This record gives sequence, structure tokens and C-alpha cells, in this order.
Amino acid sequence: MTATTASLESALERARVQSAEAERWLDELLEIPSVSTLPEHAEDCRTAARWLVDCLTGAGLERAQLLETGGHPCVYAEWCNAPAGAPTVLVYGHYDVQPPDPLDEWTTPPFTPTRPGDGNVYARGAADDKGQLLVHIASVAACIAEGGLPVNVKFLLEGEEESGSEHLAACIRAHSDMLAADVCVISDSHMLSADQPSIVSSLRGMAYCEVTVTGPSHDLHSGTFGGAVRNPAEALANIIAQLKDDEGRIRIPGFYDDVAPLHDDQRAELARVPFSDDDFKRDAGVSETFGEAGYTVYEQVGARPTLEVNGMHGGYIGEGAKTVLPARASAKISMRLVANQDWNDISEKFKRYVTSLAPSGTTVSVQALHGGQPSLVDTHDPAMGAARRAMAATWGCDPVFTREGGSIPVVADFQDELGISTVLMGFGLPDDRLHSPNEKFSLRQYHLGIATSTRFWFEYANARS
Amino acid sequence: MTATTASLESALERARVQSAEAERWLDELLEIPSVSTLPEHAEDCRTAARWLVDCLTGAGLERAQLLETGGHPCVYAEWCNAPAGAPTVLVYGHYDVQPPDPLDEWTTPPFTPTRPGDGNVYARGAADDKGQLLVHIASVAACIAEGGLPVNVKFLLEGEEESGSEHLAACIRAHSDMLAADVCVISDSHMLSADQPSIVSSLRGMAYCEVTVTGPSHDLHSGTFGGAVRNPAEALANIIAQLKDDEGRIRIPGFYDDVAPLHDDQRAELARVPFSDDDFKRDAGVSETFGEAGYTVYEQVGARPTLEVNGMHGGYIGEGAKTVLPARASAKISMRLVANQDWNDISEKFKRYVTSLAPSGTTVSVQALHGGQPSLVDTHDPAMGAARRAMAATWGCDPVFTREGGSIPVVADFQDELGISTVLMGFGLPDDRLHSPNEKFSLRQYHLGIATSTRFWFEYANARS
Repeated sequence: MTATTASLESALERARVQSAEAERWLDELLEIPSVSTLPEHAEDCRTAARWLVDCLTGAGLERAQLLETGGHPCVYAEWCNAPAGAPTVLVYGHYDVQPPDPLDEWTTPPFTPTRPGDGNVYARGAADDKGQLLVHIASVAACIAEGGLPVNVKFLLEGEEESGSEHLAACIRAHSDMLAADVCVISDSHMLSADQPSIVSSLRGMAYCEVTVTGPSHDLHSGTFGGAVRNPAEALANIIAQLKDDEGRIRIPGFYDDVAPLHDDQRAELARVPFSDDDFKRDAGVSETFGEAGYTVYEQVGARPTLEVNGMHGGYIGEGAKTVLPARASAKISMRLVANQDWNDISEKFKRYVTSLAPSGTTVSVQALHGGQPSLVDTHDPAMGAARRAMAATWGCDPVFTREGGSIPVVADFQDELGISTVLMGFGLPDDRLHSPNEKFSLRQYHLGIATSTRFWFEYANARS
Repeated sequence: MTATTASLESALERARVQSAEAERWLDELLEIPSVSTLPEHAEDCRTAARWLVDCLTGAGLERAQLLETGGHPCVYAEWCNAPAGAPTVLVYGHYDVQPPDPLDEWTTPPFTPTRPGDGNVYARGAADDKGQLLVHIASVAACIAEGGLPVNVKFLLEGEEESGSEHLAACIRAHSDMLAADVCVISDSHMLSADQPSIVSSLRGMAYCEVTVTGPSHDLHSGTFGGAVRNPAEALANIIAQLKDDEGRIRIPGFYDDVAPLHDDQRAELARVPFSDDDFKRDAGVSETFGEAGYTVYEQVGARPTLEVNGMHGGYIGEGAKTVLPARASAKISMRLVANQDWNDISEKFKRYVTSLAPSGTTVSVQALHGGQPSLVDTHDPAMGAARRAMAATWGCDPVFTREGGSIPVVADFQDELGISTVLMGFGLPDDRLHSPNEKFSLRQYHLGIATSTRFWFEYANARS
């Protein structure tokens, strides 16, 4: 078959013509209660996956199929008929959704997509992530209908993102040849505002550890033993107090060794992000901020690593007074990492330092609970440039590159298993109420997203040609 | 009426003659399930109180009556016919008992007193405190039967000791004229061993506080906010880490100001107590001890004040990893006090110091949950000397004076409300299993206790004459 390619203009026009059908897809997919964490919805997850196979096939993609994982299936489809030498884009999305609870706070039923006329569609999963994954299927459908895409595209749509993506890495590994691509695109985040497009260029990784301090073999009476036995709760507090200095710097030896320094041009780029310290304080409910000396708040949460105690427990925590000297105390402590830190290395350094702080008479153990690598995509990468131009052409203003403080583990999975970086091009808005009652997705964002996606295929093909 | 007095020898002989009756009292009182914490046993508590009124009357005491308290009643009785100028002794005990749970671990029914022939009687309350309070009623009965005591005696028997003595202080205050005495005697503790009598000369007091650190107005996502917000759990850990120095000394300004120093003769006396550091370590389940530098373990737990974290909590403490930056963290912290510290003063000093440690961006509040004064009885006090000689004559060896790390709040109540100190002359043994299944009391201890009590009246009268 001879590769033919739509023109950008014809594809954009086709997408406009098909906009009603794209909205119909949204309704159909949002009606399926594909809640991945609840066993009673397992069949609904499969129904959603099958619906996507049909939708992708109808859109003109090939080899549409379920990939069995041992849990909820993944959905795969491809269109690999681009001209010779064209690059390949892998689109990731997830069709599963969060539980809709608390149900009584929904204005309309969570699985009855509703358009009250305010420009939004309301339903669980509207923005996270059904609406955003359909953006790309709609743009691909329009391109194929007009003769084909200038790039090859593959879709990998997961059904377990909201329950921890337990089987995703193994699925990617098992199908790595089929999934081979030059770059990954994910739309599962939000823009800064409806008028200010943005692209996430960095995600923090994580090393999450649990520290347990044990002392006496059993809880002791603080009257009988207090004063002559090392108290594990106090020992734990002493250890935690030695993790950061007074200026917010982490004291674990070697912690900063691999941190990619922030260059002046990168700091200038971050300074372009319309981030308000006052808004940050208001959202956090604090009167002042505190973080590593020498960095702005936005740099502290996005571009610098940190360490936080997430939980701490020892002894009696019920009502009133109980005179116990606890046998053990423990803390959950996580570190957010930035490029080029390695979570295994950081977990080891943490463990070595924390156990070195054990006071005599206590035993300190450290268990690594969880980890994920940080990611930083060069904003000069061809795919990032293509995304920037596609967004700029659609919104009429340049997107800014942001750095997210949080983690999206699948980005590290694609890096680790396929060796490719990810463009995080989200079309949601900050007020979409993800995971909350009355989740919504803006229909304007949906259609501008389809146009952006369409432009991206052409911009990326050009950038790589 | 002319005061007549038994001779010591006739009283001791009478007690021997009446020993079967004294054991019958034990059986009768132990059969009443006077569990003060359980509402369904309220009537049983009243039955036990009425039984005591009858028993005291039968023993020859006067004005035996219930003192209503709003809860379980107290029992009062007196014998105030001693020769003019004789001192007055107030005997305190409690007729209520702990719940017998777990029932299936009892070898014999908890409220069916049983003598399997090993020299003990088994029942809930045998040692704590029914058997021990009957010691004094039996000795008084023997003295009265032989002509009278050389001292005046008053009994105050409580029914709420195992549920917090909620109404005791008010009851003492309401009847302070009637309860007026020169010294209080309590037998509600144990001797070091069956062959080594001991008298408790010191109890530690307590100041129990709860510290709460608040920061953000709500729990935050540690990815979005971590690195730029003061973490209350870390702030709390930092505060706790500043409460003691590396040598176990408490850093609260002024904390040691009022501590009565340990003189050489007192330290020599404490060194006589057969206290084993190895046994202490074994009982605590620790490989080494840790406490205030410059003091022995026995001094650390008995004669020096201390501070212990009893409980500590902040953030997520369930299974697995949750990336929360907690809005608050709190700790329960108690200080054991020694003479002449005042718990109100120490609570204030603690509060002032801890709030001064609040890092910027957090609020630290301190709530005093509970307090009690320490007590220290001069071992050269006439009542202590009398108790020492009474025990020595009965057991054939000198008792040692011990210092208890724990607190017995009623001792402070008698000091505060009546201005009298307390002789803690216990006849229990360390293996009596108080509060546990198969509680027992040694019948040998019971009868030697009656002899000791009898001797005490005469020794105390002599010491004061």
C-alpha cells in the first residue's frame, strides 16, 4: 500500500466536521463505570476496553486488540502506514476511573454524562482520563479519513492507572517490540489555565521508606522503667531531627551528588511560569513558606529534591493519658527526587545514614516501600518543540514549560522499558475536580485538544524530517 | 469511759486465736464481685461496702458508715478510745477490684476464693487490695478484744481506686475534720520478697502534657507542596529532640530547680536495696540501660525526675505508602517528678519551653492532661521508724526503704487535703499477679501482716510518747 498523507488543513476541517461524533464517543465511554479498584466493576472495565477496541477500529486503526495482563486488560491499536522514515508516536492513556464516592455530593449521576450548558461535560472520568485519551483517537480518525497521518501512531490504553498500574510495566516489557516508538505522548494532566497552555517538562521521582526504631521487647510502664531505658519514640524524633538542616537542606551524605544543577536559562524559563507564591500559601493554608535556601518556591517544589515525613507513630495515641514507654516507633518518610537522582541509590544512602544515627540500646531498620525515577525532558527535544508549536498555533500563545512536584510512574516505565521520553501535553483545567464529585471536562478544551493533537503529528513529522 | 490498752503480747496471741475468723473474712469479701469500672457491678460494690461496715462494727470499731460520694461509697469507721495524747492513724484501703478478664485464663473462678494447698488464696482482689485492708481490721479487732489500742485508728476504704478515684479527694475534703490524723498507713503494694520486707519511702509525681503542632490548614499532597511548607511532624520531632541532652538530662529551663538533692546517706540507703540491673534489663527486654548521667539505674527510676514520650502521631500510619504532608502532629509527654517539684510549676515550664521551640510557620500548643505531686517521706519520721521496727520484729530482718518510680495519687490527696504523710507498708509479693488472671495472696503474708500491723500500733504509740 502506498503511504498517503492528509494535509493539516484538511485534517483540521475533518475534525471539525466530526466533532459531534467525537462528543458521542465521549458520552458512550463515560457511561461505562470502569472503576478499576472495585472488583464488582471488573466486567465494566473489560466493557470499556472492548468499546475502545471498536472505537479505534472504527477510527481506521489496525491490529486493535486487548492485551491481557492478569488484571484489567490494556488496549492496543496502531496506524503504521506513514511515509518511510517517519517517526512513531506512542499514545498512552487510561480508561479506568476513580470510584465516584461520595455519591450524594454529585449534582448529576456520575455515569450519566451531562451537559448543563456551561460548556462542560460532567461525569466521572471526563478529564481523568477518558476525555483526554479520546482527543488523540479523534485527531487520528480525522487524519486517516483525509488520507493518513504523517507519523506512525500506536495507542496503549491502560485499565489500572487508578489502582496503581500493577501490571503495566510487565505488559510494556512483554510487548516491547510491538510498542517500539520514538516518543510517548500522554494527555493526563492539566494546563495552567484555559488561556495559558503548558507542557510538563519534569516530574519528580520518589524514594519512599519506612523507618522502625525498636527498643524494649514490649511496652513498658513509664513509672517503673522511665528514666533508665532508651525511648524509641524519642530516638526516632532525634533521627528525624537530623535529616534536614536549619535551611531546609537534606543532610543525607551524597544526597545531592547526582542532582542536575539548575542553569540560568532553566531558571529563567521557570520564572516565566505564572506561579503565585500567595496562591500557593492560600492553597496550602500556611502563613509562610519554608524550603531549601537559595531557591524560589516554584523551584523548591518542582526542580529541587525534598524529604518529607508522611507519617509518624509510636506509643499511645488515644484519648487522655496513658503512661507507656513504647517498645517501638516508626515513620514513613519519602523523598521526591529530580534528574539525575536514582531512587535505588537514594534509598540506600537514606538507609545507611538513618541506621548510622541509631542511639545505643535501639535497633533501627529501614524498609524501602516504593520508588520511582524522576524525569526531565529537554525542552529543546524535537517532540517538545512540536508540542510547543502545536499548542501555540491552537491557543494563539506560547505554552510555558512547567515542572511538576508530583510523580507519574508510567513516564519512568516508558523510559525504563522502551527507552523513550514522554511529552506531557495535558488539556484538562485546574478546576476539573479529578477524583472528586462533579468531575468535568471542558468541551472547548476537548476540541482545541483535538486540533492540537492533529497539529502535533504534522509538527513532529516536520521536526524529524 | 476509761481508756484501757491491750498488751502487745496478748494482742498478738488474740490475732493467732482469731486467724481462722480472719481467713473467713477474706473468703466472704473476696466472693463479692466489686468491679468498680463495670456499671453492672455497682450493686456489688455497695454490697462490699456494707459488708465492711458490718465487719468493722463486729471488730469493735465505732461510727462505721458509708460515706456517699456520687459514685461507689467510701466506708468509714473509727476507734478513738486510746489514752489521752495518743496519736491517730488513718488506714486507707480499697474494696473495689479490677475486672477479672480474660476469664478463660483463670484456673479457678475469680470470685470463688480457692486454697489449693500451696499457701495462697486465689481470687480477684486477694492482694489488691481486699486481703491487705483486712490485715489492719484483723489487728485492730485483736487489740480491741484484748482491751484496746495504744493509738486511735480511723479507716477510710474506697470503692473507686481501680477506676481512677474520681470522688476521693472531694470525699476527704468534705470529711476532713472526721478524718483528721497524724499519719496515714496504706498496705496496697508489695515487699521485695517473702523474706525481705520493704517500705516505700518515695513516690514520683507526674506532669502529663499533650503537645500539638499545626501547620497547613489541611493535609497536603507531598508532591505538590513538599519542599516549600514546614512539615508539622518534622517540627514536632525537632521539638522532642531538644527535650533531653545526650546524657539524658532534661533541658527544660528550671526543671531541676526544686529537686531535693540526693545526699550521701540517702544514696547509701538506696544502695542497700537488692536491686539488680540485670533483672531490670531482663524485665524491660533491653540490652542496655540509658538514663541521666551520674546516677545508678535504681536512682534514675526512683529518685530522679524523668521525661518520656508516651505517644506520638502525625500523618499516615496505615499500611503501605501515602504521600501526605500532614496538617498536624501531636505527642503525649509525661514527666515523673520527685520531691520537691510541683507538677503545676513543671507543666508551666514545659509549656513555656516547648512553645518557644515552635519553628516559624507552625503553631505549637500544650495542654496539661493530668498531674500529681511527688511524695517523699523522711525515713527518720516516727511512723516510718515504727513501721521499720514492726516489720523487723515480725520478719527477723530489717526492711529496706525503697523508692517507687510510679505514682499513687491518693498519697498526694492525703498530703494535700489532710496535711499528713503516708507509710506505704505493703504485704503483697511480686508474683501476686495484680490485674491479671489467677491473682493470689499469700496466707503467710496475711498473718505476718496482721502481726506487723499489731506491732505497728504499739511502736508508733511509743515513738510518739
